[in-house]
Amino acid sequence: MKKFINEIDHLLDESLDGFAVAHRDIISLHREPTFITRSTPPQANKVALISGGGSGHEPLHAGFVGAGLLDAACPGQVFTSPTPDQMMAAAEQVENGAGVLFIVKNYAGDVMNFEIAAEMLDCANESILVNDDVSLPKDHEAGRRGVAGTFVVEKIVGAAAEQGADLATCKQLGEKVINATATMGVALDSCTVPAIGKPTFKLTEEQMEMGVGIHGEMGRETMKLTTAQEISNYICEIINAELKPDNNQKALLHINGFGATPLMELYLIFHHAATYWQDKGIDICRSLVGNYTTSLDMAGCSITLTIMDDELIPLWDAPSHSAAYKS
Amino acid sequence: MKKFINEIDHLLDESLDGFAVAHRDIISLHREPTFITRSTPPQANKVALISGGGSGHEPLHAGFVGAGLLDAACPGQVFTSPTPDQMMAAAEQVENGAGVLFIVKNYAGDVMNFEIAAEMLDCANESILVNDDVSLPKDHEAGRRGVAGTFVVEKIVGAAAEQGADLATCKQLGEKVINATATMGVALDSCTVPAIGKPTFKLTEEQMEMGVGIHGEMGRETMKLTTAQEISNYICEIINAELKPDNNQKALLHINGFGATPLMELYLIFHHAATYWQDKGIDICRSLVGNYTTSLDMAGCSITLTIMDDELIPLWDAPSHSAAYKS
Repeated sequence: MKKFINEIDHLLDESLDGFAVAHRDIISLHREPTFITRSTPPQANKVALISGGGSGHEPLHAGFVGAGLLDAACPGQVFTSPTPDQMMAAAEQVENGAGVLFIVKNYAGDVMNFEIAAEMLDCANESILVNDDVSLPKDHEAGRRGVAGTFVVEKIVGAAAEQGADLATCKQLGEKVINATATMGVALDSCTVPAIGKPTFKLTEEQMEMGVGIHGEMGRETMKLTTAQEISNYICEIINAELKPDNNQKALLHINGFGATPLMELYLIFHHAATYWQDKGIDICRSLVGNYTTSLDMAGCSITLTIMDDELIPLWDAPSHSAAYKS
Repeated sequence: MKKFINEIDHLLDESLDGFAVAHRDIISLHREPTFITRSTPPQANKVALISGGGSGHEPLHAGFVGAGLLDAACPGQVFTSPTPDQMMAAAEQVENGAGVLFIVKNYAGDVMNFEIAAEMLDCANESILVNDDVSLPKDHEAGRRGVAGTFVVEKIVGAAAEQGADLATCKQLGEKVINATATMGVALDSCTVPAIGKPTFKLTEEQMEMGVGIHGEMGRETMKLTTAQEISNYICEIINAELKPDNNQKALLHINGFGATPLMELYLIFHHAATYWQDKGIDICRSLVGNYTTSLDMAGCSITLTIMDDELIPLWDAPSHSAAYKS
């Protein structure tokens, strides 16, 4: 394992120390328990948006704390859920009269710990569960995983909350975005979790892992590596069958890098995915290409499509100011 | 070689097609010859800033075309200089009465081709040569390479040009930033150039390449891999000896990822580098952490320090709007 690291036990803390100093104009780092808030609190009576999850997916979520986006993020250890005391402390810090909306990715540990926090909190709170990964069947026993579509939910709900939407409206809007969003990923090479020290899975030079999760979970199937266009078309077909966009609908297309794939290749995938939907009469009216929901140093990418409408587009376009995303 | 690619000969074109569609609100792609300009031209009589170089360093340079930054970028094939006809066509397109400033990274091919273009152009033009890589000695026969400090030059000169600075002022300012900037990189693993299909260099599990260039050029020495703190201190010492910042001076600290290193590790390096200079009484007043000048899928990072002052800080902070950087 070759990483920039001192001791594995200190990786997250030292990294957060760097993050906190680098972005002290935007965020504040709190300790014991660990969470991140905006350095400048928003106006009173704004719904507080809180997300979190295991680390190793940076810039998700801490990189999206800021005006027009999240109010707080709770980072767990690498690929490990944060604990309820983190969500509770964050909620108590940022709740300012309009309640708290938790944005939770669908993983058993995250779901359980956010639920415990939600039950123990005195203030009004709601949760939404992001489960955009269509590589698993809809009736999978643990449900579908939350992956790169999470940022799209955070951005759109973040804009609505900033504009004064109430808790019920934010929750309803979040669920609308989740229903309009589907993602599927493919890995060319595994990530290496620092505490484990070796790759999570092995592929030959001829293989790719189709439908991989953002922790290197095995996906639909291990397939023979093929051209970028065939890979893109394979994923787009599955997403398209799921969302069934109508001719002339508008959509946001997000190509997310998992960490080790060059931007050049992500734009090449964007080209093919955009062409796929344009050929079906879909207007790819908004785009996002880059490393937003990573899996440490995994090579690969995911394709996310969100069906947009006249309500969602202005919210996507609304101003935001965080460490990793500005609009 | 595992990459999202169709045919190697089409990689750049297909990737640029994706870039052009994804960012059509910000940039326009021109063909035969290939260059990228802002989709909305700036006000008249603004100095036109043009950069370019081999591809594979994305988002540099095309990702920095936009308001407050570059007017045009000329991408060559992977790790290959663009040709003079690209710079000439770009210059003729974007020159609008105040001349052209070429921002050139110090590589023999780039220098030669930008010089040919400059000589053949009818309009007023000047060039600045970025050579911030202090891993090579100052008197190296080919001069020092231009690496991650290039973006700092583009951002600061871009702001000045946008505010109406004339050609001589932009050139002088660029040279000031270059003199105030030093960078050094370290690789943990090689990149793989698509047309070659195998890693550019080989390291064992115990080795790192100190002073590596952004094309995987061998650096100062192949060293034994050590802790992040020791790696950071080693590089900071060399940069510090070069720039000799005075106690109480202000500086911008840029940790640049080469492509395959997680953001978590880049922030950890930022933490150590910031601490190094803070302990010397330097005020790390601005920061930039992420993948800005990449080397395809190379694992590693560089540390860049730019000594700032009351002229440079407001220019760094000035508004900008490009595909890869917004402020």
